[in-house]
Amino acid sequence: MADKRFFAKSGSYSIADLAERVGGELMNCPAPDTVIEDVASVEEAAGSDICFVENRRYVAALGSSKAGVCLLPRNIADRAPEAMPLIVSERPRRAFAKIAALFYPQEDHRTGVDQSAHVDPSAELGDGCFVGPGATIGAGAKIGAGVKICANACVGEAVVIGDGTVIGENASVSHALIGARVVIYPGARVGTCGFGFEVDESGLVKMPQLGRAIIEDDVEIGANSCVDRGSGPDTVIGRATMIDNLVQIGHNVQIGKGCIICGQAGIAGSARIGNYVVLAGQVGVGGHLEIGDGVQVAAMSGVSNSIAPGQKVGGMPTVPINDFRRQIAAVKALGRRKSDQENK
Amino acid sequence: MADKRFFAKSGSYSIADLAERVGGELMNCPAPDTVIEDVASVEEAAGSDICFVENRRYVAALGSSKAGVCLLPRNIADRAPEAMPLIVSERPRRAFAKIAALFYPQEDHRTGVDQSAHVDPSAELGDGCFVGPGATIGAGAKIGAGVKICANACVGEAVVIGDGTVIGENASVSHALIGARVVIYPGARVGTCGFGFEVDESGLVKMPQLGRAIIEDDVEIGANSCVDRGSGPDTVIGRATMIDNLVQIGHNVQIGKGCIICGQAGIAGSARIGNYVVLAGQVGVGGHLEIGDGVQVAAMSGVSNSIAPGQKVGGMPTVPINDFRRQIAAVKALGRRKSDQENK
Amino acid sequence: MADKRFFAKSGSYSIADLAERVGGELMNCPAPDTVIEDVASVEEAAGSDICFVENRRYVAALGSSKAGVCLLPRNIADRAPEAMPLIVSERPRRAFAKIAALFYPQEDHRTGVDQSAHVDPSAELGDGCFVGPGATIGAGAKIGAGVKICANACVGEAVVIGDGTVIGENASVSHALIGARVVIYPGARVGTCGFGFEVDESGLVKMPQLGRAIIEDDVEIGANSCVDRGSGPDTVIGRATMIDNLVQIGHNVQIGKGCIICGQAGIAGSARIGNYVVLAGQVGVGGHLEIGDGVQVAAMSGVSNSIAPGQKVGGMPTVPINDFRRQIAAVKALGRRKSDQENK
Repeated sequence: MADKRFFAKSGSYSIADLAERVGGELMNCPAPDTVIEDVASVEEAAGSDICFVENRRYVAALGSSKAGVCLLPRNIADRAPEAMPLIVSERPRRAFAKIAALFYPQEDHRTGVDQSAHVDPSAELGDGCFVGPGATIGAGAKIGAGVKICANACVGEAVVIGDGTVIGENASVSHALIGARVVIYPGARVGTCGFGFEVDESGLVKMPQLGRAIIEDDVEIGANSCVDRGSGPDTVIGRATMIDNLVQIGHNVQIGKGCIICGQAGIAGSARIGNYVVLAGQVGVGGHLEIGDGVQVAAMSGVSNSIAPGQKVGGMPTVPINDFRRQIAAVKALGRRKSDQENK
Repeated sequence: MADKRFFAKSGSYSIADLAERVGGELMNCPAPDTVIEDVASVEEAAGSDICFVENRRYVAALGSSKAGVCLLPRNIADRAPEAMPLIVSERPRRAFAKIAALFYPQEDHRTGVDQSAHVDPSAELGDGCFVGPGATIGAGAKIGAGVKICANACVGEAVVIGDGTVIGENASVSHALIGARVVIYPGARVGTCGFGFEVDESGLVKMPQLGRAIIEDDVEIGANSCVDRGSGPDTVIGRATMIDNLVQIGHNVQIGKGCIICGQAGIAGSARIGNYVVLAGQVGVGGHLEIGDGVQVAAMSGVSNSIAPGQKVGGMPTVPINDFRRQIAAVKALGRRKSDQENK
Repeated sequence: MADKRFFAKSGSYSIADLAERVGGELMNCPAPDTVIEDVASVEEAAGSDICFVENRRYVAALGSSKAGVCLLPRNIADRAPEAMPLIVSERPRRAFAKIAALFYPQEDHRTGVDQSAHVDPSAELGDGCFVGPGATIGAGAKIGAGVKICANACVGEAVVIGDGTVIGENASVSHALIGARVVIYPGARVGTCGFGFEVDESGLVKMPQLGRAIIEDDVEIGANSCVDRGSGPDTVIGRATMIDNLVQIGHNVQIGKGCIICGQAGIAGSARIGNYVVLAGQVGVGGHLEIGDGVQVAAMSGVSNSIAPGQKVGGMPTVPINDFRRQIAAVKALGRRKSDQENK
């Protein structure tokens, strides 16, 4: 499936091996040693490919699939072609993700410091680092083992980066302590000066931004996203939180672990976000608010009050999601032509 | 008009020549050989300049203009000063655009590979390419004729770029097949990893993103915009589609030809956008939706359902544009002080 | 308070000296020569630190603070610990900003042109400039004294930059006249081509963008923000206007002085913004509109009509802020379950 120019495939695996790796159950599989060579979509899969089907919506495609083996939940196993071996899994998409990573490990074997990189003599680099062309590393920076600093990325003075982290092309990082296995995608900005000042009749006075950006292990920060450093307290992104592209994180924001912050969302200064929070695309969160663990905010919503843990909310400003749905229905009714109006 | 430090003017043209090039009709023009030297606004134009007036709103300015010739529609020709030669055109702005491009062709004559650029020996470069200082081109990349890779831009391994395309300063491109005459503006990110994972109690599993970004001929992608590559299927931007700054295009999105996607709009994963669609500024489009040909979406609207071809819609979520206008009026009425309320 | 790896502290000051510098009044201070070594938050301050408390919300923290001296307004002075010296100031946060800048002047002493920078021989550089690794400066550029062009930043041909301005890492500037003491943060794009074209059945015609971006003195443009150049007229950002991250400024926009444009706001082409205007986060402003002096627009609002000076507005589209609050209340009521409904 994958274009071999861009993605290096690694190895092949028996059906039995794949089933075991994802904790799935073999079904309709007389030859579990059959070798699978690649992943593919249910429509495009050939006899040496594994595919997956997540739910009933795709059973039509499943019926005519030529896949060598299919991951699917038990309740649609009877919809597969008669001769198709199956791996039954209640989370077929998740299992497929693991298998795709097996075939395409996307390992980055580059190491060494390009001669055009600018590494300050006082910076420390761990074993197996890669520092690409034009990348810069400032004085006193401490870079862990296996870190990849890609072409034209800029790492500021005294920045600390943990093992296995990647700083993408043209990204820049300053005033930051960054954990292990973090991915900063191309063009992202971490640790830039926050937006703080005092205004009065005599003009603006900038508030010095004397905090740091703390990025914990396994965080990802999307392309062209921005994480300002704190103003005195730190800005903190918790472990394994995933941040999409073009997201703005203001100074002093604290985000817990395992959150998902979708594209173009923005979080204003000093907001506190709990663990496992989901902010959908283009959501805005006001400054100094608190969002509890597990909160989910619908796309384009505006959070202007703190939200208790576990709530699902939507709207501008946000209300409980069912209230939001009723708002939508009511406002839609207001917009209909009189001749189209339902009786109330 | 244009600051000669930044824009090189090229040539001069007779009034007759200009009229012919835009298919316009000369009127009130006893000396069609009069030479025009430059373009200008109706207010600033001197006797050797050509200007344009699009509609009645600008007739006051027209009346006192000193332009050497004016492009305008027939229905306001009688509002021009008596001695002013005219070129009658039903699309004066469009005609002016063509004439401005004639005077200011903005050709980029730079060629050659800067000695500080990093071009992998296995990359192929067509004739007349420019590779600027600090730019990088990865192994196996195939770069067409006349391509400009500007300073500090990064082109990844195996990327294919068609003739005449420009990759702006500090932009980065990977996992992508890019057509001819494409413009990727400074800081844009094309082909970056999509935002896809499976979540459960044991944590996140990232879905490998094994597709590509396909950018067809004549597309433009604005400054600091992001186009993620597909997850297995490809992300596709169709021919001559124009994407403004700070736009987010998620993985697997398919956009048709001739679309206009304005600043800060965002399109979530796997949405399908038809041909000639217009998304105004800050619009959000939800994942997996389908937007038909010719649809126009008002600024800041949120598309959460598929939209049939030809519709004009607005609102959050979107409704037909006239319903949206009625919604606005109704909600405004809800917000007025009681003492201000109109009778219904 | 500040991490000394990232922020160099400079000097120490007596309480009396600090009070004088901010025009504050000493109170409860038997030893005004006591030396203060650092700034800190009210919670973390030790005996050699100065902190501030802005209002009654923080009096609990004030009561248990160990600070050596505290800036506060007169009306809460009686809530400080008995032995704590005080500096009474009606603007304690502003005073603190000045004192923090005194302790942490964040001066950038770098000078000189890195040997990997690419400075066109025809460019002029003032005294004391810094041009970082991989930075490029085009032909005919005129760079003032003490300007810092950071690593991998790109300054285009003929660009003019005033004294003391900073162009951040990986930022790019073209077709622009930039004043003194301006800060362009990392990844910002200034002077890029505007989004203008004429569409008809035969396709798109691009309107040449022949204006400039004029950035007046003391302006700041946030990380990854974009300011397009004008199409013929110029795009102008007035003196001391502050622009946050990921903001989009379209072509021909004119912004007055002292404005505050928060994160992810967008201003469409040819809009005119007065002086001291505040646009909160994610606000959108339509094209060709006029926003008067001192207008304040609430977060995520959509401005689709011109706004008279001094108005506070909110909503989509914007209405006077009190109307917006009533709209919110009314729409919230529409969304409540019937069983929860208040009588009207």
